[in-house]
Amino acid sequence: MNLTQKIIKEHLIKGTLEPGSPIEIKMDQTLTQDATGTMAYMQLEAMGIKRVKTEISVSYVDHNTLQNGYMNADDHAYLQSVAAKYGVYFSRPGNGICHQVHLERFAKPSKTLIGSDSHTPTSGAMGCLAIGAGGLDVAKAMAGIGYRLTMPKIVQVNLHGKLSHGVSSKDIILELLKRLSVKGGVSKVFEYTGEGVKGLSVYQRATITNMGAELGATTSIFPSDEITLAFLKQQNREEDYIELKADEDATYDEYIDIDLSSLRPMAACPDSPDAIKNISELKGIKIDQVAIGSCTNSGYEDLMKAATILKGKTIAPNVSLVVSPGSRQVMMKLIQNGALATFIQAGARILECACGPCIGMGQSPKSDGISLRTFNRNFYGRSGTLSAGIYLVSPEVAAASAIEGKFVDPTELDYDDTFEKEPVYIDDSMIIAPVENTDDIEIIRGPNIKPLPINDRMDQIIDKKVIVKLPNNITTDHIAPAGAEVLPYRSNIEKLSTFVFKNNKPHFAEICKENHGGIIVAGENYGQGSSREHAALAPMYLQIKAVIAKSFARIHLANLINFGILPLVFKDKEDYDFIDEMDELMIEDTSKLYETNKIKVYDKTKDKYFTALTSLSNEDVDILMAGGALNYIKDQQ
Amino acid sequence: MNLTQKIIKEHLIKGTLEPGSPIEIKMDQTLTQDATGTMAYMQLEAMGIKRVKTEISVSYVDHNTLQNGYMNADDHAYLQSVAAKYGVYFSRPGNGICHQVHLERFAKPSKTLIGSDSHTPTSGAMGCLAIGAGGLDVAKAMAGIGYRLTMPKIVQVNLHGKLSHGVSSKDIILELLKRLSVKGGVSKVFEYTGEGVKGLSVYQRATITNMGAELGATTSIFPSDEITLAFLKQQNREEDYIELKADEDATYDEYIDIDLSSLRPMAACPDSPDAIKNISELKGIKIDQVAIGSCTNSGYEDLMKAATILKGKTIAPNVSLVVSPGSRQVMMKLIQNGALATFIQAGARILECACGPCIGMGQSPKSDGISLRTFNRNFYGRSGTLSAGIYLVSPEVAAASAIEGKFVDPTELDYDDTFEKEPVYIDDSMIIAPVENTDDIEIIRGPNIKPLPINDRMDQIIDKKVIVKLPNNITTDHIAPAGAEVLPYRSNIEKLSTFVFKNNKPHFAEICKENHGGIIVAGENYGQGSSREHAALAPMYLQIKAVIAKSFARIHLANLINFGILPLVFKDKEDYDFIDEMDELMIEDTSKLYETNKIKVYDKTKDKYFTALTSLSNEDVDILMAGGALNYIKDQQ
Repeated sequence: MNLTQKIIKEHLIKGTLEPGSPIEIKMDQTLTQDATGTMAYMQLEAMGIKRVKTEISVSYVDHNTLQNGYMNADDHAYLQSVAAKYGVYFSRPGNGICHQVHLERFAKPSKTLIGSDSHTPTSGAMGCLAIGAGGLDVAKAMAGIGYRLTMPKIVQVNLHGKLSHGVSSKDIILELLKRLSVKGGVSKVFEYTGEGVKGLSVYQRATITNMGAELGATTSIFPSDEITLAFLKQQNREEDYIELKADEDATYDEYIDIDLSSLRPMAACPDSPDAIKNISELKGIKIDQVAIGSCTNSGYEDLMKAATILKGKTIAPNVSLVVSPGSRQVMMKLIQNGALATFIQAGARILECACGPCIGMGQSPKSDGISLRTFNRNFYGRSGTLSAGIYLVSPEVAAASAIEGKFVDPTELDYDDTFEKEPVYIDDSMIIAPVENTDDIEIIRGPNIKPLPINDRMDQIIDKKVIVKLPNNITTDHIAPAGAEVLPYRSNIEKLSTFVFKNNKPHFAEICKENHGGIIVAGENYGQGSSREHAALAPMYLQIKAVIAKSFARIHLANLINFGILPLVFKDKEDYDFIDEMDELMIEDTSKLYETNKIKVYDKTKDKYFTALTSLSNEDVDILMAGGALNYIKDQQ
Repeated sequence: MNLTQKIIKEHLIKGTLEPGSPIEIKMDQTLTQDATGTMAYMQLEAMGIKRVKTEISVSYVDHNTLQNGYMNADDHAYLQSVAAKYGVYFSRPGNGICHQVHLERFAKPSKTLIGSDSHTPTSGAMGCLAIGAGGLDVAKAMAGIGYRLTMPKIVQVNLHGKLSHGVSSKDIILELLKRLSVKGGVSKVFEYTGEGVKGLSVYQRATITNMGAELGATTSIFPSDEITLAFLKQQNREEDYIELKADEDATYDEYIDIDLSSLRPMAACPDSPDAIKNISELKGIKIDQVAIGSCTNSGYEDLMKAATILKGKTIAPNVSLVVSPGSRQVMMKLIQNGALATFIQAGARILECACGPCIGMGQSPKSDGISLRTFNRNFYGRSGTLSAGIYLVSPEVAAASAIEGKFVDPTELDYDDTFEKEPVYIDDSMIIAPVENTDDIEIIRGPNIKPLPINDRMDQIIDKKVIVKLPNNITTDHIAPAGAEVLPYRSNIEKLSTFVFKNNKPHFAEICKENHGGIIVAGENYGQGSSREHAALAPMYLQIKAVIAKSFARIHLANLINFGILPLVFKDKEDYDFIDEMDELMIEDTSKLYETNKIKVYDKTKDKYFTALTSLSNEDVDILMAGGALNYIKDQQ
């Protein structure tokens, strides 16, 4: 068996390891962050359990740390109190980015982890099967309910050779994005093997597993080996180590080969993580901003690589350089070995240990600005500046370019690749551990914590207008935007719903209201990107009853079902073409979904019929009929 | 002569040293920050000069550093390019808070400084006569035009004795605020003398001169002595030192005595800097947030005092502690001597070297939260959370309380007052010096840089409705709010004007529009606080033609004149009582203002007459008649 199969088998509750078949697996660990966590915990509260049933559950605060207005701090107070109440670890604001801290302090080889953040697969860097999901699925896992998914195909990614000077593990995942595109990984797990793996540290592996999310993959995973052991020793967690690898004769569903020595530094160009160019093609283009950080590239080694290049240099006058270390531990290590001083001396602006500009919380570039970021997403508008051009690059490209004020290929620079050994610094003082007796703990609900909206049961016949018709690769950032204006309302769905599609279909919410809800029509890979269930919850609040797309991204598909929105796929993709916005569609008859995966849709406006498909299990249909998983769970109680 | 008189005499262009008489003085230095600077430089551009005529002019970026959306970065790009064009030093974003950096790198004993920030008097800590003003007055100074003001009364503040353990120089200025109130310093300069002065470092003096602004003072000043010399040596600026003190037989207009040894730790309670209580009265009250930083208390010594108390401790679970060092230099020193590590180990969240939460840019407390801040202002709403209670305290009170999670009196704590000698670290690499040939420099104007609005000439008869009637001590934060929502539009008056009085007279802008402008009626000390000319410019844009108040704060009065809004004072303060909002007032006849300081106002609605007074010079009337200083300057060209 391969590594993925081994872990899944060990955790299997229902189903078989046959790719494409429905399975249910036990989740050992959960993580949440604050932008998705408030909803997840409200849902957990609604489930009526007393204490989480996982081995470890951790609540992080890393997204909404700017605190413009009372909303963020209200959310933090709620999260801290609800974590205490339910036996969840609470990582305080400023302690670091969830994936960085989880990798350092909690993730374990051979365990399963589900997190309400699409970059949860980061912990796959140490042989943990780590999956991103909507908050409701995470809440269910906390309540001891297994996680249902389709058994993915397992892709063997064979790495061989060695990265050249100036080439980064970021370039490995950019290479995969170039080859496979942002939908190339849907329903797949990427398992890394080969002698090239041995040359990669856990931090380097984490960059790859993290950004595997951009492939649309279910997750990515590395073996647990002597390098994992060294990392865990550094973290004083040697006891969490077990060796873990695929059997010698393991088989895979697909195979990819990457010769590391052939890779060059790359950038994902505006506005998609798969719009890859070599830096050599961009060389000399003037830039305005460089941002180093995010869960993709803010570990100790990432920042050391940047610091090595910046040492003794000063950034160009036309560049603003911002650096956000991934965790307090990382920041302390950089203080200890002088690297933080190097950054400051070079002219860097040091931001709090948090997601920061990656999630659009501050540091928006100027109008038409060119920004190089070591992040994982460059979706349209996510930076907060619609006219900006965002390029995703490695820390090496970022640092080298900041000095010159233009794109620089670091392979052409003469600098010492090696840097000081990682200092030991472990600090859990900003992680509040759960206590035993929680009866007296009161949950704090400030005015920003609004009750969960409840959906109606599904109508037998859905007769609604098409409110919006969308192209391919629509992200959850399009549906429920991130950024400083919107994120503070993640606990307030009524307010949040007014921002749905704000950058590509203004007045969407008003149009929904006027028409008593509606239907969304979309192209391929609808709902790629973040795990935010708000991209289903806010449309649900606006009475969107169905989405008909050419294909769906995995997490969003699950979120739509969880919130009672019917996800349909065009049987014949050409039918997409004749539908226009404001066409009236009639979907009949939803009660038949138990018997068939085909459903007829009548476009009343065009007087045409077409066929849509589903891939729903009977339990999925139960959930949809109930108007979402929360209603369904309540019905069963 | 006293010290103030000496410097004024040295710089006098017009007038005599008689208190209350109009004078004009030459300004050697200017400073601007980004929230007021964009307007100041647009006004400088409108004046048609080629290069600034001051000895040193510096443009800082410290307010709008969160960059939520393209607006801030557009402003920064404009400021950097316009500074280069006009021969102005440019302190890049993240380099530090203007007053901290200016004190460290530019301020000189015996020089005059005018800054478009009300806390410009900070540099008075080293015997510099430093005055806050509206941006237009700063622009005029850059153009070589003298600064006109009323010769202030000089108040001798005699300090004797020594501060006790746990008592801070912050408590000296809080004591003055307690005694004199927020309007007790209007038209006065506070000159510090006595043996108690020798016990205060330049950083400690700077806290006092900084927060003298809260007294409404024109400025505050300390002598330049061996302590100043030591500070300048630390900054490698020994050559800027000259000794400077009052003559032995100097006389003053008023006298205040403070026995330092009698002072106890204090707090300014919500919502005014003069609502002073001893910490002993507040002891034990639970707190939610502690913020250390701002131009008042973010120097090396301030942060070292806090670090000394925090060393080896962990903040309480209910407290969020944020620390923003005043400058990169300060931050580097804290790295060098381990204090930054101490903060992080204690659980502090490290923010960028900038104004940050003091100006409402982030870190708003939770609803009803109690926040202790080492800042200078706790005006209603300024924190971003209307329901929060903001207490202004010393770094010692802040640090001690953060550990316990409640108000703690640091005099009761046993800790070592002394700390390591200040390490030497000087770094001007993020300050771009002016160059000689600026012909090729192009000024960058992103979409957030809107043209200056132009006012109409003053009507002979002003016949308008009272749009709002306000109580005493209305601040410029009420008129043109700070904070993350509004500050990005400081270069965009049309947008900014929609926020005028947003927290205490919603829909003010709409009401102005419906009524084609109007009149504001106010109580005592109208326009206290910040120097922002936007508090005149935005009402001007909304066609406010006059403000009738019981009294005015100095800078705002000058700003009203600069933008062509007639400032009138009730002759009989009881007349304030009968006027109601939406009363129609007729002010006649403005052309008589050249001859008389009395003007008749007819309340048409109430059919009553009352008398208003002015304190306008003939040049002031010229400016008002022209519709503001920019029109006036153009008329003269």
